[in-house]
Amino acid sequence: MPPEAKSGPKLGRVLLVGAGPGPADLMTVRAVRAVEGAQALLYDALVDESALDLAPRGCLKIRTGKRSGSASMAQAEINALMLKLARRGLTVVRLKGGDPSIFGRASEERAWLEARGVAVETIPGVTAASAAAAQFGFSLTRRGDARRVVFLTARTEGGDVVDDGWALGADAETTLVLYMARDAARGVADRLMTEGRSPATPALMVENAASPSGRMIRTTLAGIGAAVEAAQPTGPTLLVIGEVCAEAAGALAETPPDQRRTALAG
Amino acid sequence: MPPEAKSGPKLGRVLLVGAGPGPADLMTVRAVRAVEGAQALLYDALVDESALDLAPRGCLKIRTGKRSGSASMAQAEINALMLKLARRGLTVVRLKGGDPSIFGRASEERAWLEARGVAVETIPGVTAASAAAAQFGFSLTRRGDARRVVFLTARTEGGDVVDDGWALGADAETTLVLYMARDAARGVADRLMTEGRSPATPALMVENAASPSGRMIRTTLAGIGAAVEAAQPTGPTLLVIGEVCAEAAGALAETPPDQRRTALAG
Repeated sequence: MPPEAKSGPKLGRVLLVGAGPGPADLMTVRAVRAVEGAQALLYDALVDESALDLAPRGCLKIRTGKRSGSASMAQAEINALMLKLARRGLTVVRLKGGDPSIFGRASEERAWLEARGVAVETIPGVTAASAAAAQFGFSLTRRGDARRVVFLTARTEGGDVVDDGWALGADAETTLVLYMARDAARGVADRLMTEGRSPATPALMVENAASPSGRMIRTTLAGIGAAVEAAQPTGPTLLVIGEVCAEAAGALAETPPDQRRTALAG
Repeated sequence: MPPEAKSGPKLGRVLLVGAGPGPADLMTVRAVRAVEGAQALLYDALVDESALDLAPRGCLKIRTGKRSGSASMAQAEINALMLKLARRGLTVVRLKGGDPSIFGRASEERAWLEARGVAVETIPGVTAASAAAAQFGFSLTRRGDARRVVFLTARTEGGDVVDDGWALGADAETTLVLYMARDAARGVADRLMTEGRSPATPALMVENAASPSGRMIRTTLAGIGAAVEAAQPTGPTLLVIGEVCAEAAGALAETPPDQRRTALAG
């Protein structure tokens, strides 16, 4: 008899948990404990296998995100599944790459579930931009010349960026971090130069931030398009634009290779 | 005989470690291990006592940040101290509230130490904005109406904000998070309204994000000055401005008080 057929099972709850940028040791202690206590684990495509291994025996594991071509679940399906599992009385952990509140749709899922009486708790995570900065030795802000940092995404149509509001990146003291940057990199760079940002502004392309396969390409705002085409990234890609990027180059050049591997492998 | 008097002690290293927003269980596993392995621990004022308890017996603990009036060490003193300890062969952990790459001066310290031959590793942390969003049930971005998030600080002179570049906050689809917001809140709100941001834009004041004493005040862009004056925050204070804030209000109102305490106390 399936649990939901019983009369009045205790309603379960949902934890929206940030898995951080990849390696399981960059999850918070609270997130690790949540996964260790999960009865059902829904995980997206950006979550590292090592995080899934923390789930207890018997935990139902369901992949919701697509990885290179395979189909992913629609948001409505994911919501319905979480609700169904919670109504069976299960502790449901929804594990998302990075931080659930930054491009993670946490509030959409939370509002939908709460409207149906399910208690939701969110556990924050380290966002990819912080991980990239740590790995490659730069900061996202810097006293004097980088007083603000913007995290953003961009919509493209046929290679052209269709969003407006790019004036916010024109200021020389603003660091920009473009998430999901692979397809929009050139278009965003073009728009920023049109808005008046210097073509010589240092920029970095970071693929698979924080993972052992992480790599960083140094370029400039004007060189971004060519750099991304040459690098052909296949993993999650960030683009960082701003004076702070100059330091990444310096720091990496000064770091001996063995030390660099330690930083990469954690 | 002090260790540095020996001939050729092995050079130690420095780890710049993000302590996250407060509670020790919101540190990453990697950060916890770093503190557990510290021979010297330099910690700033925003670091929670519970994180310090993770240090091993015999670890030298040095507070570098000021707390309500007491003197804090100058940056040059902190740098010199880290260098001295590393030259004694010690593993030095520099524990910073939040994420070291966001308003944490990580790259300044790293560049200074690396220029003197000291190996530096940075371990990222959960930034206060992510913690506030998780605690109070909103997101920093949202599909459709909050496509970008800006983290920033502001300089004030006699209550007036002296920075420029506020046009970046005028766009209705941008979420702003002002760190160290206590003194600059009213000035920043005024500047954003001057730049054309709607006075009715939802806003939140969050004090001591993620801690059991954390509190959140709902207001609007126009109401920020009065709200901060009425609330008289004494702990670290964030100001969040944008449409996403409307959801925090909803979520909190729907959450039963006992659930709320769980979220607060972790």
